[in-house]
Amino acid sequence: MKIIEMRVTPIAIGDPPLLNAAGLHAPFALRTIVELVTDDGRVGLGEIPGGKVTLQMLRDAIPDLIGCDPFQLNQIKQTLINHFGDGGTSEFKNTRPWETARINHVYSAIEVACFDLMGQAVGRPVVDLLGGVVREQVPYSAYLFFKYEGAGGELGFGTAPAATGWAAARQRAALDPAGIVAQARGMVEAFGFESIKLKAGILDPDLEVDTILALREAFGPDMPLRIDPNGAWTPETALRCGKRLEGVLEYYEDPVRGQDGMAQLRQQLAMPFATNMCTTSYNDIPGSVAAHSEDIILTDHHFWGGLRATLELSRVASTFGRGLSMHSNSHAGISLAAMTHLAAATPALTYACDTHYPWQTDDLLVGGPMAIEGGCVRVSREPGLGITLNQHALQRAHQAYLDFGLTDRDDEVEMRKVDADWTFLPVRY
Amino acid sequence: MKIIEMRVTPIAIGDPPLLNAAGLHAPFALRTIVELVTDDGRVGLGEIPGGKVTLQMLRDAIPDLIGCDPFQLNQIKQTLINHFGDGGTSEFKNTRPWETARINHVYSAIEVACFDLMGQAVGRPVVDLLGGVVREQVPYSAYLFFKYEGAGGELGFGTAPAATGWAAARQRAALDPAGIVAQARGMVEAFGFESIKLKAGILDPDLEVDTILALREAFGPDMPLRIDPNGAWTPETALRCGKRLEGVLEYYEDPVRGQDGMAQLRQQLAMPFATNMCTTSYNDIPGSVAAHSEDIILTDHHFWGGLRATLELSRVASTFGRGLSMHSNSHAGISLAAMTHLAAATPALTYACDTHYPWQTDDLLVGGPMAIEGGCVRVSREPGLGITLNQHALQRAHQAYLDFGLTDRDDEVEMRKVDADWTFLPVRY
Repeated sequence: MKIIEMRVTPIAIGDPPLLNAAGLHAPFALRTIVELVTDDGRVGLGEIPGGKVTLQMLRDAIPDLIGCDPFQLNQIKQTLINHFGDGGTSEFKNTRPWETARINHVYSAIEVACFDLMGQAVGRPVVDLLGGVVREQVPYSAYLFFKYEGAGGELGFGTAPAATGWAAARQRAALDPAGIVAQARGMVEAFGFESIKLKAGILDPDLEVDTILALREAFGPDMPLRIDPNGAWTPETALRCGKRLEGVLEYYEDPVRGQDGMAQLRQQLAMPFATNMCTTSYNDIPGSVAAHSEDIILTDHHFWGGLRATLELSRVASTFGRGLSMHSNSHAGISLAAMTHLAAATPALTYACDTHYPWQTDDLLVGGPMAIEGGCVRVSREPGLGITLNQHALQRAHQAYLDFGLTDRDDEVEMRKVDADWTFLPVRY
Repeated sequence: MKIIEMRVTPIAIGDPPLLNAAGLHAPFALRTIVELVTDDGRVGLGEIPGGKVTLQMLRDAIPDLIGCDPFQLNQIKQTLINHFGDGGTSEFKNTRPWETARINHVYSAIEVACFDLMGQAVGRPVVDLLGGVVREQVPYSAYLFFKYEGAGGELGFGTAPAATGWAAARQRAALDPAGIVAQARGMVEAFGFESIKLKAGILDPDLEVDTILALREAFGPDMPLRIDPNGAWTPETALRCGKRLEGVLEYYEDPVRGQDGMAQLRQQLAMPFATNMCTTSYNDIPGSVAAHSEDIILTDHHFWGGLRATLELSRVASTFGRGLSMHSNSHAGISLAAMTHLAAATPALTYACDTHYPWQTDDLLVGGPMAIEGGCVRVSREPGLGITLNQHALQRAHQAYLDFGLTDRDDEVEMRKVDADWTFLPVRY
């Protein structure tokens, strides 16, 4: 089995006006789709966050991949490192700390596509190539956002199910506790989530804490709650808010920036700390161990360097007493399928994973969006990732990318359309 | 593909009278062979160190394995943990620090046999299921021992090649520098090894250091040299010997016992430290990181819990700046095949691996012993491990186990046949 063609397609998928510490989501989220085609006619799929540097690297990598055997992942990775360097640290480490070296993005997209091909070739789902099924149902968490009215630039591939209560609820503004509780009810009712995460770090911190307390009031103590201010709070604010949330939170995600800041705050609060900002690559692990900056690492195969690298992180995490969950950006179904196979094979996954998927109404997959039921995605037993790309939908999403004209995510620019003076501040409150 | 039969066979393989800190190798080394048979007629092979506890656990595990799919390794491991517990720490941690929890032995034998089955089922060598080929030729090191005259209880399966210089040389006593240099010449000439390890910790330490210096004299500075006193030296002896070997050793393996002892000595000597005694399981990794007890971890899939667990160790090692090599006990060809597939897929393997294999003249494999040429074993491109068990040879080795009567390795008892007053001392000099 040899790779004879590699197609790299930048796309834009509809994204509602979700607020976060970096600003406001644009009407479209950017992703890049990789298709690896083999001499025996198979197509393997990968998906990663969009952006022009990654896109160019993937395009530049095409000649490296032609002729490769998808099983020879070590060789493929070495070829990419020879071409691009091992990447060191992300150029966005300060502003987008979940980003790691670009080489990890590029390799993860290709590795996932190779796993899809391997699985298809041997007639096994990807999860079976990663050690086998630990859980058939992978739990995800409801991911709530303060937001403005609207649902973003929906594409309407025609594969979405008939509108549900959530289809309407997701369009509504949510700028206070009552709005978020309504959003949560709509999302939980539609998908059955059994834990809830609130993106914070954008409105007044006390309003955000009030919102968590309102969710507790609405859903009771059996619904785990998480809050993620994305490091936008000062230590003083984070301590004050944390004290208000002791006994309430399942975990406190990145209240402040940096491993030392996290470690110091962690000693003052009786709750688990989680991160996808201060410990986001293997380079950060020694510092994490030295400082004990968090209790839970939110991994992400797009950033940690693929499925195998993330399983290795699972071993690192359990060796050092860290729990494990999964981070998400706005994404389509190829990423969700890969996340689900990975999570299904990860023994040490201790918390429901994040996903933005409910914020999309439609998907690029034949058959439409993947089902989330009881808060879970069932891992496919079909060979490979178990999904097929709808080429018509892919082309529409690519056209949307071309039409929209954005080549890199920029939530600050979008926010300024609402508030002309708004400026990104790493620490705001 | 389902497992329908599991055969567990204790065997004894010929082992020369090799001296080491624990005493003297018996004429036979004990191993346990696992054969997993599937409903589609395949046989997967595993091999681990012998011993009656491990043997009984494997026999007790047979009902757990029947009906399992070899791809579902996470489920198989969980079933074994449910049955036997997760093992905690080895009961031999003090006397045989390379030992880890028994569950790791049991699982590693089964996991390797499952990888053999998976490879056969998908038509791929095991290395391809572990990330693919980093190196086609896996380098091993010449493993020298002070020894008495003789070659142990050879079985003569009739598959060994015609006697070479080494076949005679391996029988000779080697109790001084000249004897070891002659042993080294015989072994290097026969197998082309490009690095040399001397097992020490048994004779006078200065004689052992003299022996390293004689090897340096004989082979010149381009032949890397290692010495392994198995922790039998006091800090003072180890410091004095180490000073004599600065600028000579590739690495200093377990000169003293314990992570703290290693860490303290390491700061006083300008050479890399290696271990398969103070850091031998994931439970030991936090202590290793805190103390910085070694530069190189000698892994061993039999003890670290299988092939995947060892690849995960590779990630841990590189994350914390540790090099990686591979430990060996006396073993047959199933282990060598598994070690070779693993090493071939391990990017971070930074040193030639240990192997006792040249001390065996014959093997249980159809076609006879695996070839070591240029110091390397070429990783097979055949499906699975790429080896087939010679059932006749297996039965002879099992009969030797029954006839010999030993059920657990005991180098102290064997040593007392030579020196009635000899007693094992964890620290001797």
